[in-house]
Amino acid sequence: MPTAHEKEKMVSQKLKCLGKEVNEMIDKKQGPFIELPVRTLTNVYFDPKSQTIKLGDKTSQRQFLNIAHTRKFMQTVLVASEINKLVEEKVNVSIRDLYYALKHTIEGTNENTFEEQSESDPVIEDLEASIDLLREELHLTATSKGIIVGDMKIKDGKDTIDLNKMGSGGWGVPSNVEPDRIEIKDLSADYILFIEKDAVWKRFNEDGYWKKNKCIIITGKGQPARAERRLVQRLNHEFKLPVYALMDADPWGMYIYSVIKQGSISLSYSEEKLATPATQYLGLTTKDVDTFKIPKEVTIKLTQLDIKRINEMKSYEWFKKKPWQEEFDRMKEKNYKLELEALSRKGIRFITQTYVPQKIESKDFLP
Amino acid sequence: MPTAHEKEKMVSQKLKCLGKEVNEMIDKKQGPFIELPVRTLTNVYFDPKSQTIKLGDKTSQRQFLNIAHTRKFMQTVLVASEINKLVEEKVNVSIRDLYYALKHTIEGTNENTFEEQSESDPVIEDLEASIDLLREELHLTATSKGIIVGDMKIKDGKDTIDLNKMGSGGWGVPSNVEPDRIEIKDLSADYILFIEKDAVWKRFNEDGYWKKNKCIIITGKGQPARAERRLVQRLNHEFKLPVYALMDADPWGMYIYSVIKQGSISLSYSEEKLATPATQYLGLTTKDVDTFKIPKEVTIKLTQLDIKRINEMKSYEWFKKKPWQEEFDRMKEKNYKLELEALSRKGIRFITQTYVPQKIESKDFLP
Repeated sequence: MPTAHEKEKMVSQKLKCLGKEVNEMIDKKQGPFIELPVRTLTNVYFDPKSQTIKLGDKTSQRQFLNIAHTRKFMQTVLVASEINKLVEEKVNVSIRDLYYALKHTIEGTNENTFEEQSESDPVIEDLEASIDLLREELHLTATSKGIIVGDMKIKDGKDTIDLNKMGSGGWGVPSNVEPDRIEIKDLSADYILFIEKDAVWKRFNEDGYWKKNKCIIITGKGQPARAERRLVQRLNHEFKLPVYALMDADPWGMYIYSVIKQGSISLSYSEEKLATPATQYLGLTTKDVDTFKIPKEVTIKLTQLDIKRINEMKSYEWFKKKPWQEEFDRMKEKNYKLELEALSRKGIRFITQTYVPQKIESKDFLP
Repeated sequence: MPTAHEKEKMVSQKLKCLGKEVNEMIDKKQGPFIELPVRTLTNVYFDPKSQTIKLGDKTSQRQFLNIAHTRKFMQTVLVASEINKLVEEKVNVSIRDLYYALKHTIEGTNENTFEEQSESDPVIEDLEASIDLLREELHLTATSKGIIVGDMKIKDGKDTIDLNKMGSGGWGVPSNVEPDRIEIKDLSADYILFIEKDAVWKRFNEDGYWKKNKCIIITGKGQPARAERRLVQRLNHEFKLPVYALMDADPWGMYIYSVIKQGSISLSYSEEKLATPATQYLGLTTKDVDTFKIPKEVTIKLTQLDIKRINEMKSYEWFKKKPWQEEFDRMKEKNYKLELEALSRKGIRFITQTYVPQKIESKDFLP
């Protein structure tokens, strides 16, 4: 495991290498270009080996002397150079900070280096994909929303944080959870429960579920940020903890599950480091309605958009497995979806005392 | 300070009292009704004494025998009774859980108690306003998004959480931060910095600003939730800590400031317990552009909507003070707004090393 310092040196080397190549082309009086991976859909695929969404091998050249590329070429060099500065100064900034730090009028012209953040963001992604590093490793922070508790400690800089003593709150997951920054210690848990919703996470925390059942509970408060996904991947890879996802029985909840498990198309170039293919879908499912005798009043009729999304998801390669196809068909046939909170109709603690324990006991998961 | 147990007894008494009155009316063969505060705009005002937005004295009767009220009367009694159960069982649930827990088809009819959560939420608000208690005191949780660090400890149940040892993350503020739940200990800070944006909060945390400057830093990640506002009010009231707000120089940032300071119309019935009138506006302002020589490239042109919002805010009673009127006029005249991240143009650490220290040193605040 490289230290933070070794990691920074490595990142800096990769960036300098990119700059050196450009310099050499100029010295040779060659039109300089940067070779970048193609990030369009045509180059994205589901890799059966890693079981994640991945970026293919296609690359394209961004050429300084091609007038259609010149502005982007200039921006790419600027961003690479600024990131190198951040890494050398050991400072982490948001992608919005980076945009503002670089935005200026080019001397002697009326031209700004960037007009909008929508110009600098894709350049950052190009570089991430090109040098195969996470944005966080480039010292760029992303918003993180998640909270986590459980029987483990986190060593983060000089601080050691006891995640089993967080009261009714939780530890706010930081943006960068790479091994050189965040050390996981004294872990004593049998599995991870990845909970879609904050309100449901609070139920599991208040009921002390994680203490009684020796597990980690984490929520991304909706679609999780990169940091929550990366941390769960580390817990799974480094400590072999199974991951169970607890989501609404609706297209949105199931989509979030698929992002946790195999990643998203928009982050395909980083998914090997973010996705956790071992994740299993604990629930909720429409099948649960019969199994747990959930009253029909708390189900919600599907909208046209729901049906459209279900049909789309049915066609995704990673949802081709029979149990998922059956679940999607059942959902359409019953014409309803339901939320985790609907289980409150069976009693406020039904979800922590009956539903989840029974599902885990009977291993009643979707793949 | 009442203990959690005493508080619960008090809440339960208030609810039972409401039920008793209804029972007595029925015993007297009177058409039962519940007297509730009017929560429309006509009954909301800015109270110069408490310096918060408040609900007036107007009430109206919700009558069982008035066919236009019957459904709402039934719902009010149901919600009051369920809340009493929650309080007696010492369990906290989300308002969505409450909705589902109560949703059922009334025996012998095709009528559901509630069709949508939009029916139960206003009833909860009626009860909060009626018995003058916060939703959290009624054992209802709201989403909280905020994170906090600083030189203080939190005693929360059996756990004592050291907010000066949170690493690069922070403590996720829980929903209920009432004194009977959350005890503030070993506080050693001179002021609170209430930061609008998560990315900016991360800058202040990474730079160790709160350690060097003996302060608490908190963010609500945009518009803060009730919990963050309540916690800041407690820190201000109980420990006399000044509160400085650090927001974007735009109508949205300034509006968030006004909610922290005097509250919002929609929560008027709770603002005495949520708002912190002592809050001062540290920045950002358009005046800062000259004072700190911020390059014009990083300002953003106002939209039509911005101008509309500025004109609305200019007319609010709490923005009538001269410095605010001048700020709004300047904003319109210069025709720009700017974000906190724009300060990164002056250097990534300009905001923590120069801007905020200088503003505090010179007490250059807006009221």
